[in-house]
Amino acid sequence: MVIKPYGYAIWEKMQAQLDKMFKETGHVNAYFPLFIPKSFFSKEASHVEGFAKECAVVTHYRLMNDPNGKGIIVDPDAKLEEELIVRPTSETIIWSTYKTWIQSYRDLPILVNQWANVVRWEMRTRLFLRTAEFLWQEGHTAHATSQEAMEEAERMVNVYATFVEEFMALPVIKGSKSANERFAGALETYTIEALMQDGKALQSGTSHFLGQNFAKAFDVRFTNKEGKEDFVWATSWGVSTRLMGALIMAHSDDNGLVLPPKLAPFQVVIVPIYKQDEQLAAISEKVDSIVSKLKALGISVKYDNNDTKKPGWKFAEYELKGVPVRIAIGPRDLENGTVEVARRDTLEKQVVSMDGIELYIQQLLDAIQENIYKKAFDYRTGMTTPVETYEEFKEVLQNKGGFISAHWDGTPETEQAIKDETKATIRCIPFDQVPEEGKCIYSGKPSKGRVLFALAY
Amino acid sequence: MVIKPYGYAIWEKMQAQLDKMFKETGHVNAYFPLFIPKSFFSKEASHVEGFAKECAVVTHYRLMNDPNGKGIIVDPDAKLEEELIVRPTSETIIWSTYKTWIQSYRDLPILVNQWANVVRWEMRTRLFLRTAEFLWQEGHTAHATSQEAMEEAERMVNVYATFVEEFMALPVIKGSKSANERFAGALETYTIEALMQDGKALQSGTSHFLGQNFAKAFDVRFTNKEGKEDFVWATSWGVSTRLMGALIMAHSDDNGLVLPPKLAPFQVVIVPIYKQDEQLAAISEKVDSIVSKLKALGISVKYDNNDTKKPGWKFAEYELKGVPVRIAIGPRDLENGTVEVARRDTLEKQVVSMDGIELYIQQLLDAIQENIYKKAFDYRTGMTTPVETYEEFKEVLQNKGGFISAHWDGTPETEQAIKDETKATIRCIPFDQVPEEGKCIYSGKPSKGRVLFALAY
Repeated sequence: MVIKPYGYAIWEKMQAQLDKMFKETGHVNAYFPLFIPKSFFSKEASHVEGFAKECAVVTHYRLMNDPNGKGIIVDPDAKLEEELIVRPTSETIIWSTYKTWIQSYRDLPILVNQWANVVRWEMRTRLFLRTAEFLWQEGHTAHATSQEAMEEAERMVNVYATFVEEFMALPVIKGSKSANERFAGALETYTIEALMQDGKALQSGTSHFLGQNFAKAFDVRFTNKEGKEDFVWATSWGVSTRLMGALIMAHSDDNGLVLPPKLAPFQVVIVPIYKQDEQLAAISEKVDSIVSKLKALGISVKYDNNDTKKPGWKFAEYELKGVPVRIAIGPRDLENGTVEVARRDTLEKQVVSMDGIELYIQQLLDAIQENIYKKAFDYRTGMTTPVETYEEFKEVLQNKGGFISAHWDGTPETEQAIKDETKATIRCIPFDQVPEEGKCIYSGKPSKGRVLFALAY
Repeated sequence: MVIKPYGYAIWEKMQAQLDKMFKETGHVNAYFPLFIPKSFFSKEASHVEGFAKECAVVTHYRLMNDPNGKGIIVDPDAKLEEELIVRPTSETIIWSTYKTWIQSYRDLPILVNQWANVVRWEMRTRLFLRTAEFLWQEGHTAHATSQEAMEEAERMVNVYATFVEEFMALPVIKGSKSANERFAGALETYTIEALMQDGKALQSGTSHFLGQNFAKAFDVRFTNKEGKEDFVWATSWGVSTRLMGALIMAHSDDNGLVLPPKLAPFQVVIVPIYKQDEQLAAISEKVDSIVSKLKALGISVKYDNNDTKKPGWKFAEYELKGVPVRIAIGPRDLENGTVEVARRDTLEKQVVSMDGIELYIQQLLDAIQENIYKKAFDYRTGMTTPVETYEEFKEVLQNKGGFISAHWDGTPETEQAIKDETKATIRCIPFDQVPEEGKCIYSGKPSKGRVLFALAY
């Protein structure tokens, strides 16, 4: 996967906002090694099952010229004694380091985040959603008590939900994962689940309460306030470039991307419309003044006066790129003191006075952000279906998709059976689950509340 | 190498400033893959000699449980058809991508930067200076003409020099590398060279004019304005976490780090001095008002009211961490309306009125930034020695160190002979070299100007 500049600019905006939110909640950044000795993965039993399998393995550290003159080959003498794994996630290397950082409760909590690339060898890749290498952030925190760690895991899933809803304009369901879907080595996994326009769910961020599993695996103990020794409590949490996939799939239409203004690399594009070159100078003068006023309000704007492309080409190009607002301005506009404003989300156009245009645009950007969210919210509402029977469940799954709200008996066996038969999984047990007596759609056993099923990426 | 939070915060400040300067000079960020197919390295002949040797090689993509129950092993069936190299630098993967981005002069220039981790398998590592994995940025630009590319390479070495001098408070010599010291695949390498306090030089950033070498290796052609086909012209340029090493080695003293205010994670630390807990409340109230005033001026400040550590411990700790300014405040100060201000660079202390303290601190931070630069500049001046003979050269090298300014005949053979005999290398042919007739210190052949030799990291 190559992330081109326009896409990367969106990722930079995501990073900047998330990093701000992490720091506001007391976290600091650090950096740990890309390569993890193979033996580290054997230390936490369930973690190795879940993670240490489909990994890139470094076995040699040198190339050499082929003695037969056929390019370069791996030097057989440069074999590593212990193979190195390219990190699929960093719990093991980080907890082996925390062992040297933590002696007493005074060293806790450790609230560290890392921005990094990770590699998981995927047989079937899908751009942004499932790529061998991807970019992400991974928080790894260490605490003196179980309760503190649980609060941290909850805090971070809430930070993720706020970010995705307020900045990506994408509503999410917050909840707990069932045992089957938990992170390898976690006692509890919290998730945010979003719905894509094809009716499939996308897990968009997770936060894990790891208990003392990694502390025990790497022997990380501390002396508590009472002077007694205990193992440290852990969380980890992450979001990745998968969020780029979510952004694309949740809001795009047939004309291309639709970007929420808060994450658009530039929020406004201005296109001059002219026939003679002389006209451009007058237009540009007016545009310069509009650009200054927009920038003064913190609105990012691009003036595209490239003369090798026609306005029609530019209109299509910026629609494709999802620029929230397009302003077109021609000789007639100069006479009338107007501009044409087009919004990307609804494709509506309007002729607007140049006077106070900056305030108009500012309000319009807010309105677009809100409208994109509302559209996604309404879509999800319409695509969330309560069902009472397994027949109904299968019917909705096949003909409609979306989230299916249903009773489940709480057993891994039932979840697995439903998955085997329909491919649907439990996306989460929502935090706001309403207590309700019911019967499991599959086993008929008693249930005390509904969970959300869906087909998922 | 693990980069702990305090160190990483310095790197984040460096990144933010460099990224700003790159964007101001028209660059955008993108991201390219970590893994490069082995065959890519065979395509540019001199590049493979210089880079594709000491590399981490991925040969397998799966682990499995050892059938004999001894932990996990590499799955022998999961061998890659073509080995993947963990990028030591990204010219090859990026130019193989640029081939698909460039058809015409309209697609040029491409001004792309990447923030990434890279791996070079080093036998002898040295923290921050030479580590197997390190963090860096690598700019890779593509141009329609040789002149444009040369200008870009010069522009970026100037950006680096400005950054290192103005933000790191470290004077550098800008110049060209001799052929022996050029980047593998470059026609010209520009460098900034800094002097460490042990008299050794540190290459702190390089910018390369790559000619059409990579375009030819990866067959990247374009149609120019005249409708003719030509190969694209290239540059690349990078600085890395090695700059952290430069910062530490250039300014530290026996008490620890000395950070220039512009890169300090926090510029001011405030330590309360009190005996009874009641006194702390009154101190904290005053400190809160000082903190607000400092923050309003954009000064970053930490109030350390941790009651498990004594003031003496805190003083030593923040000296070790190089915090530019320490403010101490006790009951006596409250009575007198004063605080004690200590500056890290000179270790001087002064009692200062609380009135207008924020303006005093603002000026003090500027003075510290300037003083740290001046100290390094004066040191370098005293440690730059012109010599006329090889005897003198060896004498200075052995007994004094630093930069040695000497005549050289311009041949790789002479440079190599001097290196073999003394370990000194030509750090650069300075941009501001003064034309001067002279004789090479080694061969006695004519020379038209002096170059800078030194022992280097």
